[in-house]
Amino acid sequence: MKDDFLYREISGNIARLIREKVLKAGDKLPSVRLLCQEHGISMNTAKRVFWELEAQSLIESKPQSGYFVSQLPYQRLPLPAISKPLPVGNNNEPDGLIKKIYSTRGKKGITYFSMGMPSSELLPLAKLNKEIMLATRRLPASGTEYEPLEGNENLRRMIASRSVSWRGNLRESDVITTAGCMNALSFCMMALAKAGDTIAMESPCYPGSLLLARSLGLKVLELPTHPATGVEIDALKKVINKINLCLLVPNFNTPFGSCMPEENKKEVVALLAKHGIPLIEDDIYGDLYFGTQRPKCCKTFDEEGNVLLSSSFSKTLAPGYRVGWVVPGKHKEQILKLKFVHALSSSSITHEAVANFLASGRYDTHLRKMRAALQQNYIRYIDAITEFFPEGTKVSRPQGGLALWVEFDKKVNTSDLFDIAIKQKISIAPGRMYTLQDQFENCMRVSLGLVVTEEVRGKLKVLGRMVRGMGDF
Amino acid sequence: MKDDFLYREISGNIARLIREKVLKAGDKLPSVRLLCQEHGISMNTAKRVFWELEAQSLIESKPQSGYFVSQLPYQRLPLPAISKPLPVGNNNEPDGLIKKIYSTRGKKGITYFSMGMPSSELLPLAKLNKEIMLATRRLPASGTEYEPLEGNENLRRMIASRSVSWRGNLRESDVITTAGCMNALSFCMMALAKAGDTIAMESPCYPGSLLLARSLGLKVLELPTHPATGVEIDALKKVINKINLCLLVPNFNTPFGSCMPEENKKEVVALLAKHGIPLIEDDIYGDLYFGTQRPKCCKTFDEEGNVLLSSSFSKTLAPGYRVGWVVPGKHKEQILKLKFVHALSSSSITHEAVANFLASGRYDTHLRKMRAALQQNYIRYIDAITEFFPEGTKVSRPQGGLALWVEFDKKVNTSDLFDIAIKQKISIAPGRMYTLQDQFENCMRVSLGLVVTEEVRGKLKVLGRMVRGMGDF
Repeated sequence: MKDDFLYREISGNIARLIREKVLKAGDKLPSVRLLCQEHGISMNTAKRVFWELEAQSLIESKPQSGYFVSQLPYQRLPLPAISKPLPVGNNNEPDGLIKKIYSTRGKKGITYFSMGMPSSELLPLAKLNKEIMLATRRLPASGTEYEPLEGNENLRRMIASRSVSWRGNLRESDVITTAGCMNALSFCMMALAKAGDTIAMESPCYPGSLLLARSLGLKVLELPTHPATGVEIDALKKVINKINLCLLVPNFNTPFGSCMPEENKKEVVALLAKHGIPLIEDDIYGDLYFGTQRPKCCKTFDEEGNVLLSSSFSKTLAPGYRVGWVVPGKHKEQILKLKFVHALSSSSITHEAVANFLASGRYDTHLRKMRAALQQNYIRYIDAITEFFPEGTKVSRPQGGLALWVEFDKKVNTSDLFDIAIKQKISIAPGRMYTLQDQFENCMRVSLGLVVTEEVRGKLKVLGRMVRGMGDF
Repeated sequence: MKDDFLYREISGNIARLIREKVLKAGDKLPSVRLLCQEHGISMNTAKRVFWELEAQSLIESKPQSGYFVSQLPYQRLPLPAISKPLPVGNNNEPDGLIKKIYSTRGKKGITYFSMGMPSSELLPLAKLNKEIMLATRRLPASGTEYEPLEGNENLRRMIASRSVSWRGNLRESDVITTAGCMNALSFCMMALAKAGDTIAMESPCYPGSLLLARSLGLKVLELPTHPATGVEIDALKKVINKINLCLLVPNFNTPFGSCMPEENKKEVVALLAKHGIPLIEDDIYGDLYFGTQRPKCCKTFDEEGNVLLSSSFSKTLAPGYRVGWVVPGKHKEQILKLKFVHALSSSSITHEAVANFLASGRYDTHLRKMRAALQQNYIRYIDAITEFFPEGTKVSRPQGGLALWVEFDKKVNTSDLFDIAIKQKISIAPGRMYTLQDQFENCMRVSLGLVVTEEVRGKLKVLGRMVRGMGDF
């Protein structure tokens, strides 16, 4: 507890120095060793100070050189607080709201800050089309036949070989393909829980996961979550005896964009394994890191097969292709059985096309470009929010992914803001969508997948005016 | 009851006359009116006589001309009896057996009498490939985007417009697309039942449906089923107060290939509606009729939106495309919600490709050819079974679809036969797969989707020898 207090105090002090420009962009910070000596703290506490600052994107590490004050401008905007959902299973589904927002999907002329996928300008369409055509030639019977139950062999091999980047060291036989990530999550939840069970998730959290759990009759326990470092482990510990299952999005989850530090991942994996609680890990954003290295997964530290890793190419290549997968660990037989009865086979042509796109080596080139573009969008959002939105507007610190969380003054109701904005052909995603409780009414998620052009910047200006109109700013 | 006895007696007598060649192929039968006069029976009873004979493929009707003795040779082989499953929910899953059979799937050099789809020679591959390519050009963002939640608009319009053929008169807004028929059935069961509920199905029945129900924790009540006319309505009436849900495959179900007479469809729909029990209708084989007219669906007679019609193009165009749909009647909102959380979107390119294939008018041409080919396979099977298999072998009377049911003497165990046959590179589908009870051990399903070439005929000869070896024939 003393350490806990100390690292928060020290990191708070350094953060203030950065915000007040005493420490400037590019300045080198003292080494871990020096920090220990200066403050009389342990190595572990010193490391936590740097992780905390790094998680807030205030500093960045350079290999073999140490920590430096970040070049990015967004330290000007304050960070939202750790979420505080009620510690009880809640069931207040934002059904009407979600329906309303989805009913405006896919219309021309609307600017979709609400969209949960990359804009098609960021996708390698021509190359994908070519792969689709080649797939019809390469597959037996032109891809009209059912796939093997485990899924396309080439695809499973490529997914396994790519797992080296997060030290997954998977084999092809560890992977089962699915029709997208939601389909994978659906199989995992069905395999591991029954109606009446309790599942723990981050709060705020992707609405699809919340509603999926509810549709299976599960109670959802929302966990306090740090906007930069993800789920609060102490909070998870407190409810560990009340839950049957846990779903986390450790890397760049939506809507916060938070990323769990490696130590936290390790701790969560060990904690859940010790209590025999399976962990469903949704890693759909893992490849979209803004830093220099792909973050590891919880699965990286899973020695017992207790983690079911789910992901897809919907956020990096083609949402409409429905290409996802699950690495189910020791639950493989159950997942295969569920795939047999609920799906039978995936869509063979798109799965083969993605497999060959991966095999061509083009995926990494594409990802590099895409990550740069997303980070660029992020910076432009921050600029616009700083300029157009009321002072005191808080934003999360995504270190990757497609989501940025914006928190307004309590006077601003974003569900009302949706109604006003849609009339001006602006679609936003109100915070209330991301919870089963009455919270986040003054928040919204914006999509980093939307290219922030001058025109889009203009829409943010309009939106800023609307927000100002909702309070006396 | 007197009528029931009478129509069975009269139809039995006529059937004997046909088998003994007193009535020959092509002979005209007396009119309904004449039959009434001759036997002193009501019009309804006379009609039932003809339906029964037609269901057994002994006679066929010609528009405006009346009934004629069928040209087909298979009346020589006796019909299996009405199935007699135990009238209790049973749970004896043929897991090991199904796994064993699936593990041999997709290997070269094996003759798959067990396969549940049309051989690729029967599919319009070149035209489908062209449609796939065109779909990537026509769809926004080349098909990489999510579809609208209800599914591809063109496809839904085409499905609705085709429903005229079974007097469905659907509108586009009645249809929701899915990733194949199993996916549709999965949504329907999830929407309408909870763990512990009881679902009634035909017996024998498609294993996927049995296991799907079991995976959702449902109890399955198997119903006595006539090999030619489908589910026994009296049996359904007896258990009507014990069931929460009913799943039927009224048109050419697998494995019997039976087709419910129109009157039975009407009666079942009314019965279930009266008791507030939803009917899931699986019509996946409906387009594959051997007669002159597409059979109607139960949905045709559904006035209350109590029938959820599920189907796909997996048996007629491309299993690997995963293009299915559901017409959920009054349960539309629930199905949409389930699609949102379990699937989010279908695979856009294959759905658009099928939509355009339908719009081009090629589907009907293709179906005509395919139906003729399936019927040809059927006749060749019957020839080979008559020649190579022991006397007393019984077969069902499919009037369409992909399945033919073969019943051997009780001494023949088809699960053992599988083990013997697979060593000779012959894969069969043992009867035990199609039930959760200990029955049908002396039966097997053969696939009409397999083109019965001379080589395949040779395999049937080998199989016939194996069967003979299992008893003292």
